[in-house]
Amino acid sequence: MDAAEFRRRGKEMVDYVADYLENIEKRPVYPDVEPGYLHSLIPTEAPLEPESYEDVIKDVERVIMPGITHWHSPYFFAYFPAASSYPAMLADMLCGALGCIGFSWGTASEATLVSLLAARCKVIRRVQATNSSYSESDVFGKLVAYTSEQAHSSVERAALIGGVMMKQVPTDDSYAVRVDMLKKMIEKDKAAGLIPFYFCATLGTTPSCAFDHVVELGPLCNEENIWMHIDAAYAGSAFICPEFRPLLNGVEFADSFNFNPHKWLLVNFDCSAMWVKKRTDIIGAFKMEPLYLKHENQESGRSIQFTHTHWQIPLGRRFRSLKLWFVFRLYGLQGMQAHIRKHVALAKEFESLVRADKRFEICAEVIMGLVCFRLKGSNELNQNLLKQITDSREIHLVPCQLSGRFVLRFAVCARTTESSHIQQAWRHITQLTFELLQEPSH
Amino acid sequence: MDAAEFRRRGKEMVDYVADYLENIEKRPVYPDVEPGYLHSLIPTEAPLEPESYEDVIKDVERVIMPGITHWHSPYFFAYFPAASSYPAMLADMLCGALGCIGFSWGTASEATLVSLLAARCKVIRRVQATNSSYSESDVFGKLVAYTSEQAHSSVERAALIGGVMMKQVPTDDSYAVRVDMLKKMIEKDKAAGLIPFYFCATLGTTPSCAFDHVVELGPLCNEENIWMHIDAAYAGSAFICPEFRPLLNGVEFADSFNFNPHKWLLVNFDCSAMWVKKRTDIIGAFKMEPLYLKHENQESGRSIQFTHTHWQIPLGRRFRSLKLWFVFRLYGLQGMQAHIRKHVALAKEFESLVRADKRFEICAEVIMGLVCFRLKGSNELNQNLLKQITDSREIHLVPCQLSGRFVLRFAVCARTTESSHIQQAWRHITQLTFELLQEPSH
Repeated sequence: MDAAEFRRRGKEMVDYVADYLENIEKRPVYPDVEPGYLHSLIPTEAPLEPESYEDVIKDVERVIMPGITHWHSPYFFAYFPAASSYPAMLADMLCGALGCIGFSWGTASEATLVSLLAARCKVIRRVQATNSSYSESDVFGKLVAYTSEQAHSSVERAALIGGVMMKQVPTDDSYAVRVDMLKKMIEKDKAAGLIPFYFCATLGTTPSCAFDHVVELGPLCNEENIWMHIDAAYAGSAFICPEFRPLLNGVEFADSFNFNPHKWLLVNFDCSAMWVKKRTDIIGAFKMEPLYLKHENQESGRSIQFTHTHWQIPLGRRFRSLKLWFVFRLYGLQGMQAHIRKHVALAKEFESLVRADKRFEICAEVIMGLVCFRLKGSNELNQNLLKQITDSREIHLVPCQLSGRFVLRFAVCARTTESSHIQQAWRHITQLTFELLQEPSH
Repeated sequence: MDAAEFRRRGKEMVDYVADYLENIEKRPVYPDVEPGYLHSLIPTEAPLEPESYEDVIKDVERVIMPGITHWHSPYFFAYFPAASSYPAMLADMLCGALGCIGFSWGTASEATLVSLLAARCKVIRRVQATNSSYSESDVFGKLVAYTSEQAHSSVERAALIGGVMMKQVPTDDSYAVRVDMLKKMIEKDKAAGLIPFYFCATLGTTPSCAFDHVVELGPLCNEENIWMHIDAAYAGSAFICPEFRPLLNGVEFADSFNFNPHKWLLVNFDCSAMWVKKRTDIIGAFKMEPLYLKHENQESGRSIQFTHTHWQIPLGRRFRSLKLWFVFRLYGLQGMQAHIRKHVALAKEFESLVRADKRFEICAEVIMGLVCFRLKGSNELNQNLLKQITDSREIHLVPCQLSGRFVLRFAVCARTTESSHIQQAWRHITQLTFELLQEPSH
């Protein structure tokens, strides 16, 4: 869908929304469907080729609307109000277009926390089952979690929130965690009376897009009764391309897995997808059931309670799957794969430009859409270069630290980035470099 | 703004969004403003009367755009991608209109958790400062938090997640917590060697919209070094009306306060607003600073880092304040007050209908937009009535439990609910009641 079609479809959608709200009281306020009714109405896989917009919109009435509780019907008197107004909807349209991420990104951090809390709950029960003299706080004080020294700061924060100790595992020269180092730490900690219970592996780290060796790490975690969570926030979307699937080998050993479609799968922020091997592990850690949240089919087992209070920290959530559904259908698997592959190709193109310039070096293998590079020379020189880039406001990059060195991260981000933008960005960087190296101080 | 104006403005917004995205690469990707630039451009208070839509839209370019980092510019190469596509935006428009809350509501639950974690961090530091022999897990095992037996289930869940004990304080005959009962519990727990550290008061409980007596409870909490959090998720919006402000007396003793504009302030889900007395308490509990999240003005004190990683559990967040800004300006304070007052008046109207019917009773004082009522008689009878209501699909209510009795909650929810809907709802309820009482079993 291009801008011209969006103009047309957007205006149709505005009318659809207004029609919906003007006539909402004619709809039955509460749905008359059985839990699981969707299963027979939707395919089990995303379409290979894009579908037509007309088909999607037809299915809104055929598939979605029958299952909707109309919270904005004037006959809705349950719970408390869910606010709604036309100005707020207009603002949200603009908000979606801006799609800026409040100086940061991600709700993969929440998935990490949820998995850590589930693992904590599980290990406390297990330890108390065999050592009935242990109080909960006795166990608490001995728990130890692990993650890569390259992992996202939200992993460490999850441990802080969960009140448990977390240790950073050193990485190899490609910035990935290997099994021998984790094994050594676990053995040492066990000998000291600690209880290892959680490891957060990363597939596609934030600094350099490194991939921990989960195919080796998984069996160790399983053997040691350690919950293995995989954080694939960025790179996870790439696994829709068969050529990247080998990077996912070992996922079968994981207890939980998370990636963010809002990063690289064409779905506006926010949308984070979490998978868990045994859903009772999560439910057990979060279960709470007051009367006003009970509903009839809860115990029947006919529907998985995805949206109830047991799976996450906030109680409510937006109807985010609608975005996924629109995107899957209107791009098709092929369209989404093309998007991923284009970004990777653009990153490789940028990598070639860097490699062809003797003043620069590439600092980590380019696997996805991220290129880590720097000027050969001091950290200060690279800090100056980044400052020039930032001040010029033509392109925007952020740095990272790899092996103590200040490194520039060039991540292919926008849906609309083309080769011309890569070329222009590189011209701009080399121009600033030229000026910087002219200065007397260098 | 009515539906007709929304149709016009919505279509203009679609064009604005398409224009923005088609021309995004002409904008400087990174903003050239000083932190705090907004202060001089926006008023300190919401307008009393609605402003014109033209003025708001003009200010998008004048006020908002200069501060925006254009995440979807093809020259944005920082962090990782923030996905965006036209289909996802269309879906989000529909999602906003449906505004359904995934079987539940609220991110007040997150505010509760954040305040509890901050309080936990603070008390652990305080206790360790005076008893250096105590380990963190020693303190952990002695911590005790309190909340009303009428509090939302998410409060208890916050304690579960935070790994601390939480006790339920019994309420008086209006379902509110009074100081004597909390005081008794605290004294008993202290005598048993426990460390009271957190009390979550509720202004407007979920079952019956009861108001804990924070004006008495606050001084006790302050004296005992107990963090007092106020959860006013629903009723908090009503405090924009002076006549409801006395219910807020005692807020000056609170360490943190939360309400959900997405419940009753015309802002689409989700949008939860949290205030904290000493922001360093929150920052201290969550601080993490990797290089890729650092930015220049962070330490200058010129801007409060609202959007950084220290204030909440997910790392990123949507640009939710945009919705508030549209709503404040296009309704004005008067328009928002009228909305609150209309809902309260409709609830009083429903209350009168119930009171005029001898078969029914009102179960709690009607203060805001919630009416708790039941048929005089057994819980089973009321369960049957609710089942008839639910099965008919004409109106939608949920139940609650008050003093062991099964009670129906009638909450005025939709922006568009009018007296005619209240009258029709009551006719419907009395018709079903008539049929129910005809049955031989009654």
